[in-house]
Amino acid sequence: MKTIEVALGERAYPIHIGDGLLLRRDLISPHIRGAQVMVVTNEIVAPLYLDPLMSALTDFDSHSLVLPDGESFKNIEVLSSIFDALLQRRFARDATLIALGGGVVGDITGFAAACYQRGIAHIQVPTTLLAQVDSSVGGKTAVNHPLGKNMIGAFHQPSCVLADTATLHSLPTREFRAGLAEVIKYGLIRDPDFFEWIEAKVGDLMDLEPEALSFVIERSCRNKAEVVTEDERESGARALLNFGHTFGHAIETGLGYGTWLHGEAVAAGMCLAAAMSTRLGWIRREDERRVESLLIRTGLPTRLPDGLDGARMMELMAVDKKVLGGRTRLVLLEAIGRAVISDDFDPEALQETLAKGRSAA
Amino acid sequence: MKTIEVALGERAYPIHIGDGLLLRRDLISPHIRGAQVMVVTNEIVAPLYLDPLMSALTDFDSHSLVLPDGESFKNIEVLSSIFDALLQRRFARDATLIALGGGVVGDITGFAAACYQRGIAHIQVPTTLLAQVDSSVGGKTAVNHPLGKNMIGAFHQPSCVLADTATLHSLPTREFRAGLAEVIKYGLIRDPDFFEWIEAKVGDLMDLEPEALSFVIERSCRNKAEVVTEDERESGARALLNFGHTFGHAIETGLGYGTWLHGEAVAAGMCLAAAMSTRLGWIRREDERRVESLLIRTGLPTRLPDGLDGARMMELMAVDKKVLGGRTRLVLLEAIGRAVISDDFDPEALQETLAKGRSAA
Repeated sequence: MKTIEVALGERAYPIHIGDGLLLRRDLISPHIRGAQVMVVTNEIVAPLYLDPLMSALTDFDSHSLVLPDGESFKNIEVLSSIFDALLQRRFARDATLIALGGGVVGDITGFAAACYQRGIAHIQVPTTLLAQVDSSVGGKTAVNHPLGKNMIGAFHQPSCVLADTATLHSLPTREFRAGLAEVIKYGLIRDPDFFEWIEAKVGDLMDLEPEALSFVIERSCRNKAEVVTEDERESGARALLNFGHTFGHAIETGLGYGTWLHGEAVAAGMCLAAAMSTRLGWIRREDERRVESLLIRTGLPTRLPDGLDGARMMELMAVDKKVLGGRTRLVLLEAIGRAVISDDFDPEALQETLAKGRSAA
Repeated sequence: MKTIEVALGERAYPIHIGDGLLLRRDLISPHIRGAQVMVVTNEIVAPLYLDPLMSALTDFDSHSLVLPDGESFKNIEVLSSIFDALLQRRFARDATLIALGGGVVGDITGFAAACYQRGIAHIQVPTTLLAQVDSSVGGKTAVNHPLGKNMIGAFHQPSCVLADTATLHSLPTREFRAGLAEVIKYGLIRDPDFFEWIEAKVGDLMDLEPEALSFVIERSCRNKAEVVTEDERESGARALLNFGHTFGHAIETGLGYGTWLHGEAVAAGMCLAAAMSTRLGWIRREDERRVESLLIRTGLPTRLPDGLDGARMMELMAVDKKVLGGRTRLVLLEAIGRAVISDDFDPEALQETLAKGRSAA
């Protein structure tokens, strides 16, 4: 087992990474303050991992709540159903929620914990690669709104993150690949050595080779923890983590949540961001090709989906929350391993990049 | 004009108290960061004060949203309608909300600001005595749930509070009196001199005598600011502000929101808390009578309403959020001007106090 500490003062917490952690009551119990615990999961994850996790919680007054599966259920109505369950069971302020599942379960459960009685504790037990390397770490919680993704939310740090690598063996290949998009992102925005390592070992990763897997989760979490420590509430450096996401969110909203996976949309978004960086003369065409080539090797999309044209993308991006004071801000590359935030570009360059995003390179 | 600074480090903010402040763009503008402003108010307040306030916001891209009036609308559905309005108008992260109205408008608008894009700025412009002396200060925001009041919320400090005493002249007498309940509360929990001052000047207050009014708002805000500074997130001392509220919330929930005003329920709740303190031998019967007598002089209820018996109250209080780890904690008096939090009492004493709460003293 490896442990990374997210150094956020009185909100500091550990991320434990390893095989079979789900069953480790010695890791979970210290983070449960009161007697009441509610495990929130979904209908796909529950049959696989709910019983094992509950067996580690027998010292507590433990309950569970199974949500419908999918991004389309990450909304205010399903959030309300969590509040209903907590109040019907008379959960107190010292109760703890445990999010068992992927990013959707983690985001909505974290947000429920942020708001229930103005904030109770929660533990993240991510069961997808995406959640293990990204969404479970850093305290960003949210639900979607019909007019935009993650528009309603809070910053609320978990008390602990348990990334059980054993859960990845039950993960559909498509979801595993989508998670790799965020792994590659860390290399691109701030860790060139890591990017090169992934280029060299992508085969091992795709084969779920245990050591490779454990390494990328640890290195990704370490990168994320460093950024979050530097800028907990996204006033600066943290926005770099949105590399590919402004494009990606627009794709997800345009297609309807759940058509493409988040990581798939981010992959195409990272290619668009790289293409935009090339167009502005910030990186070389070869660098853009390296990004694209690695994503292709992982089986991720690198182009806009059919049915979304540049004009519609411009419209969707205008609603995205990274719009600040009327200008679209993008995370772009200055090199492989170095990203910057910028609104200093000609809107036409963006339009042209989006227009080209549909055809072959 | 008087100004009190709430000393919360990087979340510090001023409370301005005075006549006609609604129109003072010099006080409002410095707290608006971006270009977009949305004034959220209700159908009762809008015809009185929305136009004057909007006239002070002509330097900005200013919008307004009028909510239905009443505690029964402080719910997740109405909260969602604020998010809809913000997203339809494409409000950015640097936008500012202004809450113009009483506690309901303040609480729901503050909570909308806490969650919209994970937190934007807001200004409180309270137009009721209750909101001016209590709910607009301290950053507690929330909506109600059918199973309990203020169960869903956040701590989110405003950027500024503008208490315009001129707005109190349009306030119905019943609401003004309800506000006095919270004023008296500050005297009871931590400011014995203030309690004596109110006993002496209650006539002037009921006549809306300007100097008396200005003094009690300032002194109340100063008391609240001190408590909040000491304990922003209610882990200790701040819970003293809930004096009378555990009983009061149960009354409000039991009657259905809006039957009694919040301050009316708190007044009866303070009498129950004083009676419980007498029963435990912590204060003398004369002290309890002083509390009751002052509340009677302000025309506030001092007994449980018809239709709520002790058994039902016990049930309702169990759901209240001050339930911590299964025990009911109450704020009780050790003297006039000194409150303590305690769960160290015989549940029978509580039952007896509630049973007696219905009949005449």
